[in-house]
Amino acid sequence: MKMKLSDFLDQSKEKIEVAMSSYVESLNTPDLLKDAMLYSLEAGGKRLRPILVLALLHTYNKQEDIGISTACAVEMIHTYSLIHDDLPCMDDDDLRRGKPTNHKVFGEAMAVLAGDGLLTQSFSLIVNDSKPSPEKRLRIISELVYAAGVEGMVGGQVADMEGEAKSLSLEQLQYIHEHKTAKLLGFSIVSGAILADAPEDDIEKLRTFAYHLGIAFQIRDDILDIEGQQELIGKPIGSDILNEKTTYPSILTIDGAKEKLDSHIKEAKSLLNSLSVKSDLLIEICDLIATRNH
Amino acid sequence: MKMKLSDFLDQSKEKIEVAMSSYVESLNTPDLLKDAMLYSLEAGGKRLRPILVLALLHTYNKQEDIGISTACAVEMIHTYSLIHDDLPCMDDDDLRRGKPTNHKVFGEAMAVLAGDGLLTQSFSLIVNDSKPSPEKRLRIISELVYAAGVEGMVGGQVADMEGEAKSLSLEQLQYIHEHKTAKLLGFSIVSGAILADAPEDDIEKLRTFAYHLGIAFQIRDDILDIEGQQELIGKPIGSDILNEKTTYPSILTIDGAKEKLDSHIKEAKSLLNSLSVKSDLLIEICDLIATRNH
Repeated sequence: MKMKLSDFLDQSKEKIEVAMSSYVESLNTPDLLKDAMLYSLEAGGKRLRPILVLALLHTYNKQEDIGISTACAVEMIHTYSLIHDDLPCMDDDDLRRGKPTNHKVFGEAMAVLAGDGLLTQSFSLIVNDSKPSPEKRLRIISELVYAAGVEGMVGGQVADMEGEAKSLSLEQLQYIHEHKTAKLLGFSIVSGAILADAPEDDIEKLRTFAYHLGIAFQIRDDILDIEGQQELIGKPIGSDILNEKTTYPSILTIDGAKEKLDSHIKEAKSLLNSLSVKSDLLIEICDLIATRNH
Repeated sequence: MKMKLSDFLDQSKEKIEVAMSSYVESLNTPDLLKDAMLYSLEAGGKRLRPILVLALLHTYNKQEDIGISTACAVEMIHTYSLIHDDLPCMDDDDLRRGKPTNHKVFGEAMAVLAGDGLLTQSFSLIVNDSKPSPEKRLRIISELVYAAGVEGMVGGQVADMEGEAKSLSLEQLQYIHEHKTAKLLGFSIVSGAILADAPEDDIEKLRTFAYHLGIAFQIRDDILDIEGQQELIGKPIGSDILNEKTTYPSILTIDGAKEKLDSHIKEAKSLLNSLSVKSDLLIEICDLIATRNH
């Protein structure tokens, strides 16, 4: 029986949130640090990255629980990156998802350490997960470093900083978003496929799928900054223009950006249709990302 | 033939420094990030943590090269922790080993990211090291998270911050140094023993040995802050007293601290003498730590 997308998303979210909180609660560490980590982990969000891990297991008809530890790990990495990005020396943001940012509540030093802690512990979730074979766990850790480290997310963040208040080429913009956003989404998808014992051919197709999905995700973000509703996206409309940020619409016009979004989604779906399994759930997630209003 | 300690230290240092730099050079990441990481990695230091990994392999008559990747990983973790500790929101230090700190040269945002990058990549060095078996690599990664994460170094750093400008009990001081310093030294020793296929009995003894060595290391630090020579330790004498920091001498008097140092070194050596192998090199390293003047 086909599962409704919204049910799958809700159930996955619930499982992931319970598992993350209970993992952090179980750690033997000063309460203040635990509180700071839990504050950001429990601040909500779409949980897209961990849901993708479970969606891959679902697609290959495997028990979704096999992916819970890896799903929690990627959400912890995502959360650490938000805490560090919000710091005064980085984006200097006071609000995140409508709540005061971590350093506003716990101070800057604790925010740095909560981020360091979440990053480090994410590896523990994978390494100590007894379900996948040792070889699989090592492969997943290697993929995680590739996606989250200096050849992935951290590198993209540096490129983003270097490009601030400069006029970027489409190629430079692409580099930033591929590294800052698409690679970690790619980790979710590839690690889910590895855990699901997907054929190697499928895994490579899914890696390219993730690239298109990630860029589409970012283009939609840029479009929402122009055409979105403030109450839905939770931040003021037009902030990119105000900050003179290079975006897909600023280079391609809004119509050009919409065309580019469509073409990435088309590529993504055609890759899904070439997999060895039916991928209705992933196709629905694609559509959701292309049309989301927050 | 017995090797001279100073030769062992010099040769190990050289190997580790070459391997670390060439690893970072090989990464596909923005040059500015690479420069920031290399700046701190190449700023010198005793390289005690990585040398201990190699010293364990030497002790068990194994090829020291087996430990190079793990040795580089622990030095990268140590270096990331120094970069983050020096940030204005943490200890706000302008100088480290006589050179401007990372954020003084590259700015705060880049220093945060260089630290994040070093921390993340350290796992790559271990996971992609083809020499140890998959099971050994997983065990070493698990030990690294335990030593460097919120149940180890990051937790110790938080306890240290919470204890600032407060009068601490000996127990609280012990918690801070056990977590902030001894656990990562413990990782070096235990991971070296795992790589060397040391008997499990020895590994547990070495874990306790590392605890005594780590505390002894810290007591010596506190004593040097009172009796050391500024030109040798590279920072002003008496800064702990000036900052009203709780130290071993402030709780125990200087003579009491020296006695405590001796008793930890005695325990450490007695554990070494109970191992299944002769451990002359480790005994010499113990003495070096107990009597070092910088």
